Amino acid sequence: MKTLAAALLTLAALALLAPAAHAQAPSLTGPWLVTADFYGTPRLYNLQLIQQADKLTGDFSGDKLEGTVSPAGNGKDATVKFFGKDNEGGTEDVKATFANNILTGSVHETHPGEENHPLDYTFTATLIPARPTAAPQRHEFVPTVYYRSFSPFNKPVLTVNPGDTIHTTTVDAGGNDFNDIKRVAGGNPQTGPFYIQSAAPGDTLVVHINRLRLNRATAESDDGMVQSSLNSDLAVKMKDVGRSITWNLDRANGTATPEQPKPKAGETATNHLANYKIPLRPMLGCIATATGPSGSPPPTGDSGNWGGNMDFNEIVEGATIYLPIQNPGALLYLGDAHAAQGDGELNGNALETSMDIEFTVDVIPAKRIRAVRVESPTHIMATAYAGSLDDAFKDATANMAQWLEQDYKLTPSEIAQVLGASAEYRVSEVADRNSGIVLKLNKDRLATFTKTP
Amino acid sequence: MKTLAAALLTLAALALLAPAAHAQAPSLTGPWLVTADFYGTPRLYNLQLIQQADKLTGDFSGDKLEGTVSPAGNGKDATVKFFGKDNEGGTEDVKATFANNILTGSVHETHPGEENHPLDYTFTATLIPARPTAAPQRHEFVPTVYYRSFSPFNKPVLTVNPGDTIHTTTVDAGGNDFNDIKRVAGGNPQTGPFYIQSAAPGDTLVVHINRLRLNRATAESDDGMVQSSLNSDLAVKMKDVGRSITWNLDRANGTATPEQPKPKAGETATNHLANYKIPLRPMLGCIATATGPSGSPPPTGDSGNWGGNMDFNEIVEGATIYLPIQNPGALLYLGDAHAAQGDGELNGNALETSMDIEFTVDVIPAKRIRAVRVESPTHIMATAYAGSLDDAFKDATANMAQWLEQDYKLTPSEIAQVLGASAEYRVSEVADRNSGIVLKLNKDRLATFTKTP
Amino acid sequence: MKTLAAALLTLAALALLAPAAHAQAPSLTGPWLVTADFYGTPRLYNLQLIQQADKLTGDFSGDKLEGTVSPAGNGKDATVKFFGKDNEGGTEDVKATFANNILTGSVHETHPGEENHPLDYTFTATLIPARPTAAPQRHEFVPTVYYRSFSPFNKPVLTVNPGDTIHTTTVDAGGNDFNDIKRVAGGNPQTGPFYIQSAAPGDTLVVHINRLRLNRATAESDDGMVQSSLNSDLAVKMKDVGRSITWNLDRANGTATPEQPKPKAGETATNHLANYKIPLRPMLGCIATATGPSGSPPPTGDSGNWGGNMDFNEIVEGATIYLPIQNPGALLYLGDAHAAQGDGELNGNALETSMDIEFTVDVIPAKRIRAVRVESPTHIMATAYAGSLDDAFKDATANMAQWLEQDYKLTPSEIAQVLGASAEYRVSEVADRNSGIVLKLNKDRLATFTKTP
Amino acid sequence: MKTLAAALLTLAALALLAPAAHAQAPSLTGPWLVTADFYGTPRLYNLQLIQQADKLTGDFSGDKLEGTVSPAGNGKDATVKFFGKDNEGGTEDVKATFANNILTGSVHETHPGEENHPLDYTFTATLIPARPTAAPQRHEFVPTVYYRSFSPFNKPVLTVNPGDTIHTTTVDAGGNDFNDIKRVAGGNPQTGPFYIQSAAPGDTLVVHINRLRLNRATAESDDGMVQSSLNSDLAVKMKDVGRSITWNLDRANGTATPEQPKPKAGETATNHLANYKIPLRPMLGCIATATGPSGSPPPTGDSGNWGGNMDFNEIVEGATIYLPIQNPGALLYLGDAHAAQGDGELNGNALETSMDIEFTVDVIPAKRIRAVRVESPTHIMATAYAGSLDDAFKDATANMAQWLEQDYKLTPSEIAQVLGASAEYRVSEVADRNSGIVLKLNKDRLATFTKTP
Repeated sequence: MKTLAAALLTLAALALLAPAAHAQAPSLTGPWLVTADFYGTPRLYNLQLIQQADKLTGDFSGDKLEGTVSPAGNGKDATVKFFGKDNEGGTEDVKATFANNILTGSVHETHPGEENHPLDYTFTATLIPARPTAAPQRHEFVPTVYYRSFSPFNKPVLTVNPGDTIHTTTVDAGGNDFNDIKRVAGGNPQTGPFYIQSAAPGDTLVVHINRLRLNRATAESDDGMVQSSLNSDLAVKMKDVGRSITWNLDRANGTATPEQPKPKAGETATNHLANYKIPLRPMLGCIATATGPSGSPPPTGDSGNWGGNMDFNEIVEGATIYLPIQNPGALLYLGDAHAAQGDGELNGNALETSMDIEFTVDVIPAKRIRAVRVESPTHIMATAYAGSLDDAFKDATANMAQWLEQDYKLTPSEIAQVLGASAEYRVSEVADRNSGIVLKLNKDRLATFTKTP
Repeated sequence: MKTLAAALLTLAALALLAPAAHAQAPSLTGPWLVTADFYGTPRLYNLQLIQQADKLTGDFSGDKLEGTVSPAGNGKDATVKFFGKDNEGGTEDVKATFANNILTGSVHETHPGEENHPLDYTFTATLIPARPTAAPQRHEFVPTVYYRSFSPFNKPVLTVNPGDTIHTTTVDAGGNDFNDIKRVAGGNPQTGPFYIQSAAPGDTLVVHINRLRLNRATAESDDGMVQSSLNSDLAVKMKDVGRSITWNLDRANGTATPEQPKPKAGETATNHLANYKIPLRPMLGCIATATGPSGSPPPTGDSGNWGGNMDFNEIVEGATIYLPIQNPGALLYLGDAHAAQGDGELNGNALETSMDIEFTVDVIPAKRIRAVRVESPTHIMATAYAGSLDDAFKDATANMAQWLEQDYKLTPSEIAQVLGASAEYRVSEVADRNSGIVLKLNKDRLATFTKTP
Repeated sequence: MKTLAAALLTLAALALLAPAAHAQAPSLTGPWLVTADFYGTPRLYNLQLIQQADKLTGDFSGDKLEGTVSPAGNGKDATVKFFGKDNEGGTEDVKATFANNILTGSVHETHPGEENHPLDYTFTATLIPARPTAAPQRHEFVPTVYYRSFSPFNKPVLTVNPGDTIHTTTVDAGGNDFNDIKRVAGGNPQTGPFYIQSAAPGDTLVVHINRLRLNRATAESDDGMVQSSLNSDLAVKMKDVGRSITWNLDRANGTATPEQPKPKAGETATNHLANYKIPLRPMLGCIATATGPSGSPPPTGDSGNWGGNMDFNEIVEGATIYLPIQNPGALLYLGDAHAAQGDGELNGNALETSMDIEFTVDVIPAKRIRAVRVESPTHIMATAYAGSLDDAFKDATANMAQWLEQDYKLTPSEIAQVLGASAEYRVSEVADRNSGIVLKLNKDRLATFTKTP
Repeated sequence: MKTLAAALLTLAALALLAPAAHAQAPSLTGPWLVTADFYGTPRLYNLQLIQQADKLTGDFSGDKLEGTVSPAGNGKDATVKFFGKDNEGGTEDVKATFANNILTGSVHETHPGEENHPLDYTFTATLIPARPTAAPQRHEFVPTVYYRSFSPFNKPVLTVNPGDTIHTTTVDAGGNDFNDIKRVAGGNPQTGPFYIQSAAPGDTLVVHINRLRLNRATAESDDGMVQSSLNSDLAVKMKDVGRSITWNLDRANGTATPEQPKPKAGETATNHLANYKIPLRPMLGCIATATGPSGSPPPTGDSGNWGGNMDFNEIVEGATIYLPIQNPGALLYLGDAHAAQGDGELNGNALETSMDIEFTVDVIPAKRIRAVRVESPTHIMATAYAGSLDDAFKDATANMAQWLEQDYKLTPSEIAQVLGASAEYRVSEVADRNSGIVLKLNKDRLATFTKTP
C-alpha cells in the first residue's frame, strides 16, 4: 500500500462504469475512506470498490484488489472479502461486513522480507460523500476558541461546503484580538479548524482570500534579529537589541510607523526612524490543513508541506492557496496575520496584529500535491520549508517541477529549460524551526502551455 | 595594523591641515601606497603621512606613527624614520629614504605573544595620485585578449580616469564573440582589466552600466540542473537531461526562444516549448575588481566580496555597482553576459551570449565596503556569496547592516526594525562554488533617512 | 521573568537561612512549583520564597520579589501578597491564599513597551518535595503501554526515587517486542514515562545505563540510504534500493549478519555479504525527558535539547546521560534500541530490535544545562540536534562551552584553547528531521581541572 | 570526450595485445599524454593507440578512434590520421605527424546541438613513460623555496621514481622553519612540488608517511574560534578572544603545554590551564597534488578532491594517502604540519610548527578516484571538502561508495548495508573556506571482502 495517489487517480475512469445493479445486494461501488485501528494508532486509507453482481474489484490505497460480496438478502447488509496485492509482493487479505452504510472488518497484511511480521488490524470504512450540490453560502463565523497546534483532533468549529465563503477574524500571534484583548496564550493561535464537506485525504484544498483587512490600530513587533540572520560579526553588533516595538497602523493612508523604545540607561536616543513609514500589506502568517492522525500534531510555530507557519508575505488578499489534504473535511486553520512583513521575518515577530478575513474554499478531488502552492494574479509559487535554506531551495524546485509536470505535462528537459530561464526564488522565512524558500514563475512564462485542470 | 579603514577615514580631516612648508625638506604629507616585499610575497599597505617641519605624524595602515624627516638638503631627497604602534601592543620601526618621489625602506615589526617572531621586510612607497581633473572622456575599447582569472597580475588593457566612460564588448562564457567565433577557452573569459587612475586599496569603485545590449542572434544554454537545486527525487527525475540548447534571440521584439534538442534514440519528441518565448533581459554574469596581490587569483567561475561570477540578474543596464578595491587602479574585469537568466542560473549556463557594453567608472576614496553593493533606480542591494545559502543569507544581512550604518548612520536597533519590515531577499546564484543571496531594500523605505555621501 | 536558572541557583544560599518560625503563620519558605493557567495554556514557573515573620522575599522565576504574609491564625492558612520586578522594568503583582499546603492566586504582569498588554492569570503552587531519603530500590517494570510522543500529558507508568534502579524492556522502532510480536504501531514507541520524585523544572536528570542487552535473535533494517547522505550522483546510483533486511543476532559470539534480500526480477544475485559480520553494540536510539506543557509534544522521531530520537551510538551500557528537566517528575522515556548502528543511521533504520535494560536515575537540583550531555568511562560528550549539520556543529560547540564554563569554570579564552586542541566531533544522526553532532572530550584532557559538583 | 576513466581502464586489456611490428613504420602503440593548446589554455588528454601494420585503433580520452599511419619510410617519422566518436554523436578528426618521438597535430571537434561551434586546436603528445625499474632510492631534500599555491606551473624541486623515499622538512603555516626563522610569508607555504616519474593524469598517487617528527620546541596557535563553530550566543561570549598562544613542545615526554597570554588591561588572570598538557600527535595539515593546468591554481589554504589544506588529524606517521593525479609527474606538495590538532581546527590555527618528514611515493596507473582517500593500519577513510558540512557529508559518502564499488565490487544494496552498519563520520575541518567530513570504515568490517588490486 505505497501510494494513495494512484488509487485516487483512477476515480475519473471508474466514474464511467455503470455500477452493477443486483437485486439483493447493496452496491458498494464508490470511494471509501478507511479508518484503521493500527495497533492503537488511527490510520487513514483510501479504498476504491467496483461491484459488478457479486464480484468486487478495485484498489486499496494503491494495491489492486479482487473479491466477492455475499448479500445478506435484505439489500442493505452484506459480507465482503477481498485480497489485494502491491507491486512488490505485499498482500492484504480483507474480511468485512456491511451494515448501516458502514464497512467493518479486519486486514491481514504481509510484506516480503518481513515474513515474521504479518500485520493484523481492524477498520471501519464509510463512503466519501459526493460534492454537495447546494448553492454556495456565505458564513459569518465568530471564533470563541483558538488552537495552538495543527491537530486533526480539535473539534471543527464550522462545517461548510466546497464553494462556500467564510467571513471571520484572527487574533494576533500573541493571542490579542481586535480590541487588543488577550484571548489566549501566544504562539500563533489559530482560528478554525473548518471542516469542508466531501474533502478527503488525497484531495487538494483550495482557499481563495477574498479580503484580508486590519481591524485594529496597532501591531506588535520587536527590534531583535533571529539567529539565522546573524553571522558572528552581526551577532556581536546586535547583542543588545531585543525590545518590544509597537507599530501604529494608519489604515486610512495604508501605512505603519514604529514607536521608538525608550533608551536604556546610558544609551543615547536616536531618532532616525522618527518619520519612518512603511506601506501596509496585510498577510496571513499561518494557513494549514491538519496533519494526519497517525503522528503528533505540530505546534502552530511549525511548518511543512501541509503549510502552517509559513510567514510568506505573498499570502495576501487576492491570493489562492492550494494545500494537501490529510484528513476528512480537510480541517483548515488560519492565523498569525501581519500588517506587513519583510522577507524572512527577521525580528522573529513581524507587525503582529489581528485581522478580518473573508475566504472561499474549494476541493480538487484526487489530486495530490507535494506541498503548498500559492497563486497570485501574476504568479504561480511553489513553497518549501526545511531545516536549512539549502534544503528548502531543493524542495521548492522539486515542488515546482511536480507542478509543471502535473498541470502542464512538461518533460524533465522542458522543466529544466523553463526553470533555468524563468525561476524567481524568494526567501519566505528564517525565523522559525524551518526556513522557507518559494519558487515563483510569472504566468507570462506559462502562457504557451496547455493547463490540465 | 588591523584596519586600514580607520586610516583612510582620516584623510578628509587631514586634507584640512595645511602641509608644512620647510625650506630644505620635501613635503611627504599625503597618502602613500606601500608595496612591501613580505618574505617573497607582495603586500599592499596604506601610509598616511603629515609632515610639519621635520616632524612626521600619521597612520600606517591603522597604526598611529611618529617620526622625523632628515632633509638631504636638495629639497628632493630625505631620510625618514618613524615608529608605529597598534592598540594591542604591536609596533613597527620604519626606516626609509626618499628619492625620485619614491620612499624606499625597511620595517621591523613586533607583536605581543610572538616575541620570537619579529618581522623584517622591505618596501617602496609612492604617493597615491590625486583624482585627475581632466574632463571625462569616452573610450572605445576593442578587446584582443581575455583573461580567465581575476588576477592583479594581468596587464591593464586600458587606463582611464574616474568619470570616464568605456564602450567595449564581452565574449560569452564559452569564449565566443559577436560573430560566434571562439576567441578563447571557456570559463567566463573577461574583458579587462581596466586601470582607473587614482584608485587605491581601501577605496570603492563605482561602475554605472549605461548600456548593455546584445550583439548576436543566438545564446547557448543547456537543459541540465545543477546539483544545488536537486533533492534526491529530482536528481533521479533529472538523471537523463544535460544537452546543449541554443536560444534564438529576437532583438527586434525583445524575446528569446529555445531550439529543442533532437530526441535521443528511443525518446519521444515533445513540443510543449514549441512556442516558448521569454523576454530578453541582458545582464552581466561577472563584474569584479582584481583580488589582492598576496593571494592566488581566483578563477573567473568564482565569486567573493570583490564580485566575480555573481550571476545576479539585476546587474543590468541602468544599474550601479559598488566594488571594494584591493589594488592600485582597481583593475576592473567584466564578462559572462546573459541574454536572460532565471534566479540561481539553474542550468549551470544561462542564455550565454556576447554583449556590447558602455559603462562609466568612478572612485569613492577611502570608503571600505564589506562586499559588492548594487543600486538600481528603485532599490539598494547588498550581495553575499558563500559556501551555502544559509551562510550567504547571514553575510548579505551583515553587508546591508553595514550599508545602513555607514551611509545612513542607523543604530543596531534601527537597522533591525528597517530590515524586519522591509527586507527583500533574492537567490542570485546556486550554480557555482559559492551560492549567492542578495538583500534588497526599496528606496522608498529609505526616503526619510539622511544619506551620508 | 527571563531566566529560571538564576532563581534556582540561589537555592543553596537559601538553604543556609533558618526559616522564620512564627507562632501563628505557616512558613512558606522553600522552593515552589507554580502551575499557571496562562490564558488556557499550562505554564510552569519556579517560585522561591523566604518568610521571616510576616515578611516575604525571594525570587519568582528570576525576578526579585518582596511581599507579606497575613496569617489566618490557624497556623495553616494565610494570605500572601508580593510584588516582583525584573531587570528590564517588568513587574508581577501577585495575590494568593495558602490552604491545604497549596498556594492559589493570581498574577498581574506588565512589561515596558507593552503597556497595553498587561497579563492576568491564575495559578496554583506546591512546595517542591525534598529529595526522598529512603534507601535506593530496584524496580522490575513490565510495560503494557508504549507512547509515540514525548508528551508531558501521558500518565507516568511508574514513580521512583532518585537513586532507584529500574529494570524493564523496550520494543523495537516498529513496535515489536522480545517475542517479535507487534505490540503497537511503529515510529519508536517508548517505554515510560517514569516519574522521578522531587525532580522539578530547572533540574538535571541523570540516567546511568547499568545494563543494555539484546532479548531476541533478529533485528530489522533495510538497504535504503537517507536523503541527507545522497549527493546527486549517489541518489541516482541508489535509486533502486530500499528493501527490508533482517539481521540475525548471534548473542553468544556478539555478532550480527544480514540476510540478503531476494533479487528482484531481472536482477543478478550477488553474495559479497554472504559472510558479513559486524560486532553487536547495543544502544538506545531514544532517551528523553518530556517537553514542557505549554507546547505541542514532539513525536518520537524527533529530537531536541531534551534528547529524544538522538540515534547516538555511544548511548550504550555504561554510559551516563544528563537531560534537562521541564516537568515535575522529569518524565523519562526510552526506546528505539539498536543492536548496532553506524554513525548517522544512514539506512533510516539501524539494526532495530527489542532490548532488556537496567538503569539508575538521579536528579541534580537547580542545574540547568543547554542540551543533553553524555558521559562514558573515557569521554564527556555534548550533543546537539538542529536542521543542518552546520547548525548542529555550532550548537554542540556551545553546549560543550557551557559545560566547561559551568563545571570547570573555564574562561572563554581557556575554552577556546581546550576545544581547539582536544575537540573530537562525531556525526550522530542524519536520518531524521534534525541532524546531530556530538562534541567529545577525552577525560584525560580535563585531568588538571577542578570539577564543580 | 567525456570520461578519461574509461579510456584508462582499457590499458590492462591492451597490455595483453602484442604490438604490431611493421618494417618501415614506427610503432605508436602505447599510452600518450596529449597537451593541447585549447584556444590559449593548456589542456591535458589521454590518448591510447594500438597500431597493427598501418591501422590504428584506440581511445582518445574515452572516445573510440580509428585511423591510419603513413610511414615516412625511415622507421622514425610518420603521418597519422584518426577519427574519434563519443557516445553522444561528438566527433574528433585528428591529423598529426610523428617525429623525434613526439606527435604534433591538430584536432577538429564537433558536438551535436553545437554545430555552429566546431572546435579547432593543436596539440603535441608524448608516450607516457613506463614505470622505472631502478631499485628504490632514498632522497635527502633540503627545501630552499616554498610555494603558496597548489600550482602545476611551479618548477618541480626534485624528481623521483615510484617506490622512492624522500626525507625533507616543512616550515610551519606562518613560514617559520625548524630554527623558528621566518623563511616565507605565511598561509601554509609548501615543500615541493615533487615530480614522480611515469605518473600521468588519471593515475592515483600513493604517499606513505614513514616518519613525521617535530624538529623544534614550540608551536604557534591562538585562542580564537572560527566563525563556523559559533552560534549567536557563543559568538557574543567569544567576542574578546583572539590572542596568539605559544605551545611548548616536550618531545621527550610527548606532550604540549600552552603559555597563557598576559591579561589585557582590566582583565583578571586565570590559571586553569597552568598545568594543561595534551599529547603530541604530529600531523600534516596539507598534502596535495597540483591541480590541472586549465584552471587557476588554488591557494594553499584551500582544499578539494586533490587534497590540499585538509587539516585532517589522521594524516599522521603510518598513514597512506591516495590522491588523484591531474598532471604529468603528479606534482606532490606538503606542508602545514601540526604538533597536535583537535577536530575542525577550531582556532583557525592548530599547534603550528615545522616538521621533519620521510615518505615513500608510488603510482597506481589508470586508476581514477573521486577524491583523497586515507588508510591507517586500522581504517580506510574517504575524505570530502565542500562549502558546508551537509554537502561534505554527502560527498564523503559518495567517495566511500565509489571506493567500495571500485575496490570491493559491492553493489548499491551492499554498499548501503555496509555503510549503515559500519560508517564512522569525523569532522576534519571547519576553519577554512571548505568544511571537511571523513567517512571511516574499520578494516575489520571489510575482512570478508575480496579486494581488487
